[in-house]
Amino acid sequence: MTSTLILLRHGNSEWNAKNLFTGWVDVRLTEQGRAEAKRAGELLLEHDLLPDILYTSRLTRAIQTADIALEEADRLWIDVKRSWRLNERHYGALQGKDKAQTLEQYGPEQFQTWRRSFDVPPPPLDDDSEFSQAHDKRYAELGVDAPRTESLALVIERMLPYWHSDITESLAAGDVTLVVAHGNSLRALVKHLDGISDDEIAELNIPTGIPLVYELDDDFSPTGPGRYLDPEAAAAGAAAVANQGKK
Amino acid sequence: MTSTLILLRHGNSEWNAKNLFTGWVDVRLTEQGRAEAKRAGELLLEHDLLPDILYTSRLTRAIQTADIALEEADRLWIDVKRSWRLNERHYGALQGKDKAQTLEQYGPEQFQTWRRSFDVPPPPLDDDSEFSQAHDKRYAELGVDAPRTESLALVIERMLPYWHSDITESLAAGDVTLVVAHGNSLRALVKHLDGISDDEIAELNIPTGIPLVYELDDDFSPTGPGRYLDPEAAAAGAAAVANQGKK
Repeated sequence: MTSTLILLRHGNSEWNAKNLFTGWVDVRLTEQGRAEAKRAGELLLEHDLLPDILYTSRLTRAIQTADIALEEADRLWIDVKRSWRLNERHYGALQGKDKAQTLEQYGPEQFQTWRRSFDVPPPPLDDDSEFSQAHDKRYAELGVDAPRTESLALVIERMLPYWHSDITESLAAGDVTLVVAHGNSLRALVKHLDGISDDEIAELNIPTGIPLVYELDDDFSPTGPGRYLDPEAAAAGAAAVANQGKK
Repeated sequence: MTSTLILLRHGNSEWNAKNLFTGWVDVRLTEQGRAEAKRAGELLLEHDLLPDILYTSRLTRAIQTADIALEEADRLWIDVKRSWRLNERHYGALQGKDKAQTLEQYGPEQFQTWRRSFDVPPPPLDDDSEFSQAHDKRYAELGVDAPRTESLALVIERMLPYWHSDITESLAAGDVTLVVAHGNSLRALVKHLDGISDDEIAELNIPTGIPLVYELDDDFSPTGPGRYLDPEAAAAGAAAVANQGKK
């Protein structure tokens, strides 16, 4: 028996629009981001891919995206589970910084290392920073272990246990499972699903607002490549993500 | 130790606006209903009553209300649980019927019996009706036991087990617990909390869109009367509900 997994990256947020590193800073969708989410819901409807359960991060922009898409698809009533393990990568001391300015200040090599290296995290963010989540009640359960910065390797390390403990449980139950999350938490999941190497993952960009659908076998391995519900828009979107920060 | 329970009835829906009996028919909020939900979120913020967990019915109008209120209060990220046990009363064969027309056709006595009697349900709704939920996937778990009509007594009977099994568990954990539901499922809960008799419950009307707050003791009994966060608007709203269907 196969099961269906749908991945969805949230759309344009206030800080995408401002070209700032966001990470765990809890910004909201822009009007453009809301329109992307609505379009995602339309695509689910058109393709008759109606989720039975929703997983989101603890970040408002992902939750808004999910709610708008599900409202459009008339599926607001499904069960919902949220976890910090689906959060965006914590960008450490880069959170709140301008991307173009950072590129200029540190040069393209350091910039690309922070953005795309597999296991080099940016410097940690000070707990006293206005952009820190060290005192955010929603992460209280993490105590002193709450991240202060993360590489993609660290994102994988905290995301995969949730995949194995919770998301695959819904898939095993035969539920069409929707995961609405972020560029890096979804890259982490796609890396796992598609068996992408540590070196090659740097080249993978996931476009915003376009559902990415996998059919999985009993072992939760894809029976084929993931497919975007709007492949043309997805290709354009992935290229746009790859060019982020460039001027 | 006391815990905090917040009850919220969804605001104006498409069928409130049309003066139709709704019950389990899954209509959406009107713009007015959305504005009520936003106001509810503002009241939560103003009173510093920030929910840690959300319970909703499986009906879109309640879920929309919750999402809008929580977005306003910056608490979209909290855990969510949904259950059909918090649904509005199933209105049986009245679902989809015009309230004023029903009043005219059957007279005020029969009309009030259906609306407010404790244990007389309207005639059951036929499974083939366009207003039936007998084939709605979201209630598949109920099988043949899915309600075809309900009295308030029957609502209490299916709501209270969920109160005892799930909602009180959150309260016991010290979570500020928000329940967003419907006129009759909330009347059922308030009847239980305030120990209102079967005869007196007919007189209780819960206004839409205004958070009703209880402090509960270790046995989940109120330490005092529930208080509306906007008492003046609540009194006006309850009077408006009492006059529903009248011309």
